[in-house]
Amino acid sequence: MKQAELLNNLKKVAAHEITPQQAAEKLSEIDFTELNYAKIDTARKKRTGYPEVIYGAGKTPEQISGIATALKKQGQPVLVTRVTPEKATKVQEKVSDLNYNSTAQVMIWEPQPATHIGEIAIVTAGTSDIQVAEEAAVTAELFGNQVTRIYDVGVAGIQRLFAKLNVIRQAKVIIVIAGMEGALVSVVGGLVDQPVIAVPTSIGYGSNLNGMTPLLGMLNSCSAGISVVNIDNGFGAAYNASMINHLASKEAAR
Amino acid sequence: MKQAELLNNLKKVAAHEITPQQAAEKLSEIDFTELNYAKIDTARKKRTGYPEVIYGAGKTPEQISGIATALKKQGQPVLVTRVTPEKATKVQEKVSDLNYNSTAQVMIWEPQPATHIGEIAIVTAGTSDIQVAEEAAVTAELFGNQVTRIYDVGVAGIQRLFAKLNVIRQAKVIIVIAGMEGALVSVVGGLVDQPVIAVPTSIGYGSNLNGMTPLLGMLNSCSAGISVVNIDNGFGAAYNASMINHLASKEAAR
Amino acid sequence: MKQAELLNNLKKVAAHEITPQQAAEKLSEIDFTELNYAKIDTARKKRTGYPEVIYGAGKTPEQISGIATALKKQGQPVLVTRVTPEKATKVQEKVSDLNYNSTAQVMIWEPQPATHIGEIAIVTAGTSDIQVAEEAAVTAELFGNQVTRIYDVGVAGIQRLFAKLNVIRQAKVIIVIAGMEGALVSVVGGLVDQPVIAVPTSIGYGSNLNGMTPLLGMLNSCSAGISVVNIDNGFGAAYNASMINHLASKEAAR
Amino acid sequence: MKQAELLNNLKKVAAHEITPQQAAEKLSEIDFTELNYAKIDTARKKRTGYPEVIYGAGKTPEQISGIATALKKQGQPVLVTRVTPEKATKVQEKVSDLNYNSTAQVMIWEPQPATHIGEIAIVTAGTSDIQVAEEAAVTAELFGNQVTRIYDVGVAGIQRLFAKLNVIRQAKVIIVIAGMEGALVSVVGGLVDQPVIAVPTSIGYGSNLNGMTPLLGMLNSCSAGISVVNIDNGFGAAYNASMINHLASKEAAR
Amino acid sequence: MKQAELLNNLKKVAAHEITPQQAAEKLSEIDFTELNYAKIDTARKKRTGYPEVIYGAGKTPEQISGIATALKKQGQPVLVTRVTPEKATKVQEKVSDLNYNSTAQVMIWEPQPATHIGEIAIVTAGTSDIQVAEEAAVTAELFGNQVTRIYDVGVAGIQRLFAKLNVIRQAKVIIVIAGMEGALVSVVGGLVDQPVIAVPTSIGYGSNLNGMTPLLGMLNSCSAGISVVNIDNGFGAAYNASMINHLASKEAAR
Amino acid sequence: MKQAELLNNLKKVAAHEITPQQAAEKLSEIDFTELNYAKIDTARKKRTGYPEVIYGAGKTPEQISGIATALKKQGQPVLVTRVTPEKATKVQEKVSDLNYNSTAQVMIWEPQPATHIGEIAIVTAGTSDIQVAEEAAVTAELFGNQVTRIYDVGVAGIQRLFAKLNVIRQAKVIIVIAGMEGALVSVVGGLVDQPVIAVPTSIGYGSNLNGMTPLLGMLNSCSAGISVVNIDNGFGAAYNASMINHLASKEAAR
Amino acid sequence: MKQAELLNNLKKVAAHEITPQQAAEKLSEIDFTELNYAKIDTARKKRTGYPEVIYGAGKTPEQISGIATALKKQGQPVLVTRVTPEKATKVQEKVSDLNYNSTAQVMIWEPQPATHIGEIAIVTAGTSDIQVAEEAAVTAELFGNQVTRIYDVGVAGIQRLFAKLNVIRQAKVIIVIAGMEGALVSVVGGLVDQPVIAVPTSIGYGSNLNGMTPLLGMLNSCSAGISVVNIDNGFGAAYNASMINHLASKEAAR
Amino acid sequence: MKQAELLNNLKKVAAHEITPQQAAEKLSEIDFTELNYAKIDTARKKRTGYPEVIYGAGKTPEQISGIATALKKQGQPVLVTRVTPEKATKVQEKVSDLNYNSTAQVMIWEPQPATHIGEIAIVTAGTSDIQVAEEAAVTAELFGNQVTRIYDVGVAGIQRLFAKLNVIRQAKVIIVIAGMEGALVSVVGGLVDQPVIAVPTSIGYGSNLNGMTPLLGMLNSCSAGISVVNIDNGFGAAYNASMINHLASKEAAR
Repeated sequence: MKQAELLNNLKKVAAHEITPQQAAEKLSEIDFTELNYAKIDTARKKRTGYPEVIYGAGKTPEQISGIATALKKQGQPVLVTRVTPEKATKVQEKVSDLNYNSTAQVMIWEPQPATHIGEIAIVTAGTSDIQVAEEAAVTAELFGNQVTRIYDVGVAGIQRLFAKLNVIRQAKVIIVIAGMEGALVSVVGGLVDQPVIAVPTSIGYGSNLNGMTPLLGMLNSCSAGISVVNIDNGFGAAYNASMINHLASKEAAR
Repeated sequence: MKQAELLNNLKKVAAHEITPQQAAEKLSEIDFTELNYAKIDTARKKRTGYPEVIYGAGKTPEQISGIATALKKQGQPVLVTRVTPEKATKVQEKVSDLNYNSTAQVMIWEPQPATHIGEIAIVTAGTSDIQVAEEAAVTAELFGNQVTRIYDVGVAGIQRLFAKLNVIRQAKVIIVIAGMEGALVSVVGGLVDQPVIAVPTSIGYGSNLNGMTPLLGMLNSCSAGISVVNIDNGFGAAYNASMINHLASKEAAR
Repeated sequence: MKQAELLNNLKKVAAHEITPQQAAEKLSEIDFTELNYAKIDTARKKRTGYPEVIYGAGKTPEQISGIATALKKQGQPVLVTRVTPEKATKVQEKVSDLNYNSTAQVMIWEPQPATHIGEIAIVTAGTSDIQVAEEAAVTAELFGNQVTRIYDVGVAGIQRLFAKLNVIRQAKVIIVIAGMEGALVSVVGGLVDQPVIAVPTSIGYGSNLNGMTPLLGMLNSCSAGISVVNIDNGFGAAYNASMINHLASKEAAR
Repeated sequence: MKQAELLNNLKKVAAHEITPQQAAEKLSEIDFTELNYAKIDTARKKRTGYPEVIYGAGKTPEQISGIATALKKQGQPVLVTRVTPEKATKVQEKVSDLNYNSTAQVMIWEPQPATHIGEIAIVTAGTSDIQVAEEAAVTAELFGNQVTRIYDVGVAGIQRLFAKLNVIRQAKVIIVIAGMEGALVSVVGGLVDQPVIAVPTSIGYGSNLNGMTPLLGMLNSCSAGISVVNIDNGFGAAYNASMINHLASKEAAR
Repeated sequence: MKQAELLNNLKKVAAHEITPQQAAEKLSEIDFTELNYAKIDTARKKRTGYPEVIYGAGKTPEQISGIATALKKQGQPVLVTRVTPEKATKVQEKVSDLNYNSTAQVMIWEPQPATHIGEIAIVTAGTSDIQVAEEAAVTAELFGNQVTRIYDVGVAGIQRLFAKLNVIRQAKVIIVIAGMEGALVSVVGGLVDQPVIAVPTSIGYGSNLNGMTPLLGMLNSCSAGISVVNIDNGFGAAYNASMINHLASKEAAR
Repeated sequence: MKQAELLNNLKKVAAHEITPQQAAEKLSEIDFTELNYAKIDTARKKRTGYPEVIYGAGKTPEQISGIATALKKQGQPVLVTRVTPEKATKVQEKVSDLNYNSTAQVMIWEPQPATHIGEIAIVTAGTSDIQVAEEAAVTAELFGNQVTRIYDVGVAGIQRLFAKLNVIRQAKVIIVIAGMEGALVSVVGGLVDQPVIAVPTSIGYGSNLNGMTPLLGMLNSCSAGISVVNIDNGFGAAYNASMINHLASKEAAR
Repeated sequence: MKQAELLNNLKKVAAHEITPQQAAEKLSEIDFTELNYAKIDTARKKRTGYPEVIYGAGKTPEQISGIATALKKQGQPVLVTRVTPEKATKVQEKVSDLNYNSTAQVMIWEPQPATHIGEIAIVTAGTSDIQVAEEAAVTAELFGNQVTRIYDVGVAGIQRLFAKLNVIRQAKVIIVIAGMEGALVSVVGGLVDQPVIAVPTSIGYGSNLNGMTPLLGMLNSCSAGISVVNIDNGFGAAYNASMINHLASKEAAR
Repeated sequence: MKQAELLNNLKKVAAHEITPQQAAEKLSEIDFTELNYAKIDTARKKRTGYPEVIYGAGKTPEQISGIATALKKQGQPVLVTRVTPEKATKVQEKVSDLNYNSTAQVMIWEPQPATHIGEIAIVTAGTSDIQVAEEAAVTAELFGNQVTRIYDVGVAGIQRLFAKLNVIRQAKVIIVIAGMEGALVSVVGGLVDQPVIAVPTSIGYGSNLNGMTPLLGMLNSCSAGISVVNIDNGFGAAYNASMINHLASKEAAR
């Protein structure tokens, strides 16, 4: 909660507009919607700039529907990640206008189309990384960013990367997604002057250790300017990239 | 190397200004300085926006001096990280104007004072995280950023964090540095609308596993908008934060 | 076996009321019931204050039925944890009055309703942690404790926690259940003056490592007053909390 | 901060006794003392029942002296853990009445002797676990608990444990400290009806993995009623045990 | 191959009874039977005292049948471990007299009933460890050992163990099988004067890490006289125990 | 891209045969074929001596068919690894002349039969390692190598290895494939004067850790002359072995 | 405590020779000697066949001297393991007749020379494993076993092992000690018909992981008849081997 | 031992030139030199093409001197790896003509200068990898290979690598040495048609995990044609590279 609001409430108390008890309740109670199984953080967009997002993997169709409906009522955009096709069908029986993207495995509802500004480049090492990349792309678009997709430019055929370097360099932020050993991140990081957000994927076998190997590799990159999010976490990368991409325009608007 | 330069060189060949052989050499050879033990990447600043930085831990005083001297000759700022006081003294015998900061354990030489723009907040959970924080702070200042230090506001006494929240929220980017379990990162991430760069430290004992525990914790944060760099890597966090902080002004200058 | 009983038996031998051979058997043999596949520890309630509990995961419906029947014969309450709906149905074919709670995945039979004393607060970070929380809640109620449920108050929306802090502070013991990075435990621990029992859950993906990340995080908490049980071990947390909650009344009864 | 205080401050604002701005500062700023390198959580005792404790391992003698002096000024007891003899000597040059216990490696200053109530049993498996045990014992005594020490009763000679079982059973809470495989915890847990707090130690070699093996073993104990703290964390165990031991008297005082 | 046989063959060469070429072949080729997919080590019984055993997990029914038939032809006993019921049925279609034990998940064919000597005690901590225990028991009986089964005597109810201690002490070798933390091994090891072979099982959840926790615990046991085999390796434990049990009689026969 | 080609293109620019813009495109764009979901590295054979190989595990039948068709159009041999029988059937519906080898789980199309030179020995420890061995064998044959298969000669029956040693020693390169502890690699390495490429397999259970144990064992071999590839990576071993085997003839052709 | 003694004491109670209270004390108290810092298990030899052994690593010279003196008073042999030369000198100032073996790093005092029976073969892979081997050898000799040392016969030069095979086969039990990958264990295990006790050592570097790699390798050995003790645990291996070696004679003496 | 020799010895027995007993001794005893602490594998050069190499790290100066002297007597070249300057001085007091290379930390004695054939390229990512690289270079030269050193061409400044690509491509085998994340290996592997041997180094900090991160990364490389040796194992890489480099000439000489 912003300090300004705190002061404002205190002033209302001083002016006898509200009682101290009311102020205390205001300060702590209003910022979420209570469901039986969840407390929806309806103040999140105001506080962090982005609405609450529903992580679909651990929830029942009923829980997803309930939270989505509550968000829609407040006119907030709805994003549900990690939804299997089966679960999506069940959710749509209850909330029919939640659109399902089967490649990215996400569900989306927008109160109105977002304006897309700036540019985020999403780069993958291989074809197998595309599902994670699409989770990132769809998230970034919902959050109002232009997205450029550059897929399958891993270092085993490094000329593919060089051919696309001009395109990549036009973005404000770059998301690099790679499994196996994740070397693409270091190579891109050494060639650009933008922030790079690295996403390790669980693509590979044996000592890939379900993505731990590229995760560790990316954290130890010999190139600077790279930060890392969790394995297969396309959503998290897009969230970060969107924050950075919007910094400039937000500053301008101040 | 930028595509524009490539084209430019090719045009010179077409115009018979240089021979093909000369162009080939130009294209591949000019962008570094060859020492006996190192190839100094003198083009890095042009390519990535930042000069080559010397990681001091694995190098002899002779190697550090040599590389620093080569960078100075080209008028590039010099930053050497992870330098013990003993090694610093030996380096200064050869390059006397390399200043040593014993808290941050870095050496610095600037051709001219940098202009500090924007603002990066550096937040630590405890007193023991200060060395890593100062490595970040000194790096960020050298790279032309204003820095605000907010130290020892860990969640065991969460009112300390809330008291400083207004200050933290004024920054464009936030670096959060924490050892033990690293929970401060998630709390900050849930309260701000700026990108947060998390730095795990090796502070703690037993099952802290030399920083692997907060590293994993930060990567799994329930708050979005957080990306992570390597354990104790204050330099890397500052490098990322600087890139983001400079994005706005760079855009403006286009 | 209590020293008092040992002395008592030895006195009977001295008084020729029982033979030495009978005493030896008494001392070691009487305290369990031998089945074909199990030795039921029927003395456990006398010795530790709680009856033997059946860990259902590794056992066949036949084994569960047999042990439950033996416990019922002695008038002991029956608690079977980790029972899938399919297995529960098969067990009920043999022991029809074992009630099944499908959220907590436990089966229960009580000789008579327990008296609920004191208060245990069960706090979860997310909606996905509810199954573990219900295993804890049902266990605590069977063992005679009042339970307050506070679900989905994770630190990504920390105002939800503060709104419930007064309720949490009224309990004698607090169980905090969280997956991902488990930061909620440290925040709660820094705000209360009761013992906190932390339960990491396997909720999360990638480098969550099936709960090892929050487990390690909780063990390294910067807040004091926290102890930890195994991943997803709601039963174990409730058992501990019940022991602590009953301490006061037990002392009074001495 | 307690809800009652919040209300109280708000009432003062309503009564025009303080300005809203003053209230806002009060609410967030007063609860710690700002040093150059630390923010001392002077409200912790009021909030959690225990004063802030100084973890000495990562701090300089100057920092320890400064924080200790600040706590003493407020009449709060001072406890510094993990202090080597060399560092203790340097601290005592500045704060001469901080007593040093070389077995437990802690420094202590008490404004007045604590009243010792209830009883905590501290049980170790071996002689090598004594340093951790004394850190626990000294902490527990400072926090106002009676302590009974039962050392070197590991399961390799289990008759030693049985001989001391009556003594152990008289305590309200039991701390069990063990290295190697940590089996003593499970045996004690199966024989008592009190809460057991388990402390793994880094005693052992090879696949003991610096205490990770007994840590994992204790978390997986087949006995119920056991919770675990970090490796070698005698302080943490005592803190928990003290909280539990004081529960009864606190309840009585309500 | 025994040195005596080598000498014998060399003597035959010297006596011109066989050619050098024939000797070379004899020395290296005769000791196995070549199948398309396997080289059956038919000399193993002569060399190590035990026949080749078929590890069924990674093999097709056809491969198992083929190898079993080859061993039967030479009058060697057949033991196939890790056979699921489905696979057993398919194998029996080809080799009908291979008996299947569904608890131990092994198949057996004996040319003639073995004479059972000495005694091996097989002790488990819980009911869930019985499958591994039966693999051990059946193996030990096939190899000519008397077996005593003592199941479900884990340390959570330690009086069960003491009640059976006399029986356990009558064996020549003791196999202790336990999951979770494996503490039973240390307790037994401290009470007996026979070799103890410890078998960790994958029974448990969360930080049990599929048996790695009891494996590490057993290797770090504070009791001496314990050696360890792989997780769930009932066969390996029985093989070792049989070797030890037969030592005495073998010596007598020398 | 070869330096010679770079020079050649530059010369054409100098001769005004092509424009600089055309050269720039040539240099970076021509070396791959762009599909919707992949950038096929059609220059790989020229650059590394081997065509691009399709890792089938993470791809849909449509993607495999598309890439295979593109490679066939250029007259390049096609190799798809890790294809299940179900997926193979679907791929063959689109590309009917892609042959499927069900033991090796690979699909193959050859523009013309390769000439097989030199010799690679493929040695396995057990019958269960054969699938990995066949992936290696089929790959090596496709790449123009003679292959000798020596299966099931693990060290538990070491005379089987000695009997085949002469055959193994005739190869130019040796691939050794083993699961469990992987000891066969060290034994072979100590007996031969050829390079040995070691392939750990995930055969085993418990503390085999899905092949990490033999992987680590092979990397720590006490015999020299051994290098290691990823777990179950028969393809990678064959690729390396083929490179080495072809060195001699390539040198001759220079 | 043996059941026979329990009965005997109970009979004395029945005969009024001792009071019940005296019996209870006898049963639990007499079996150890209480020092300030240790409870010496003086009954261990009677119970397990071997005296208590002092693990020197975690103890002060004073503690070692005190325990050694107490054992000597009872006429028990004294063995102190893991003693550095410096610590040994300090211990000898107090207990001058404790002999120090600097290769094995153990101290020994024998009331009378042991009779050496049977035979234990101690086999090492390399020269660097000799310290662990000597700890085993000295322990075994103190416990009354004949010892044969066969050092530096690792599989990199496997003919060295074969040359010593006849000697190895004459032992009743074989201890195999190896670092790096530990392959020697599997080779020996496949060639002998005696129990093999494997000791991994921390010899090696990089991914040897301080002995975890050979430890895991030995547990996964493809040869049967192998059991494993902790890393560098020469003492533990000798203790086990001695138990097995003495089995035959003990049986004979029954 | 070669099959030919075996046959030859057997023929001599048949011809009564030697007795069977002598043959048996010949077959097993002759191939090493017995010292007190080592069995020197003097036949290794004949068997594997390379002499026994002394791993200096775990050995005393006396042991190194003794083994070196024995090898010199047989006219074999001597290579001792991992020798600190202090140890080297002590060894030279006994064997004065063993030359010490302080960068590579190896000692060398050559009976006569080796002829250097072919070419091995040794490529490092950074300046800090040079010690490992020099261990490889010196080893390769001793074994008769020409060596080209290309140091500090890591992917953070990838133009340095491209500038040296022509030089690298002239070698027959390439050794790539890198710490941090090891990405250089994948980039080189995608650009060359020679076998690449990858050496991870322990250069880096935090989650580099002493070289485990680049080790895992290299094993998971997306480029084919790469095999890996142990962390920091420059010697092992050179040994492999030498074997491959000599293949061609050996084949020619057949």
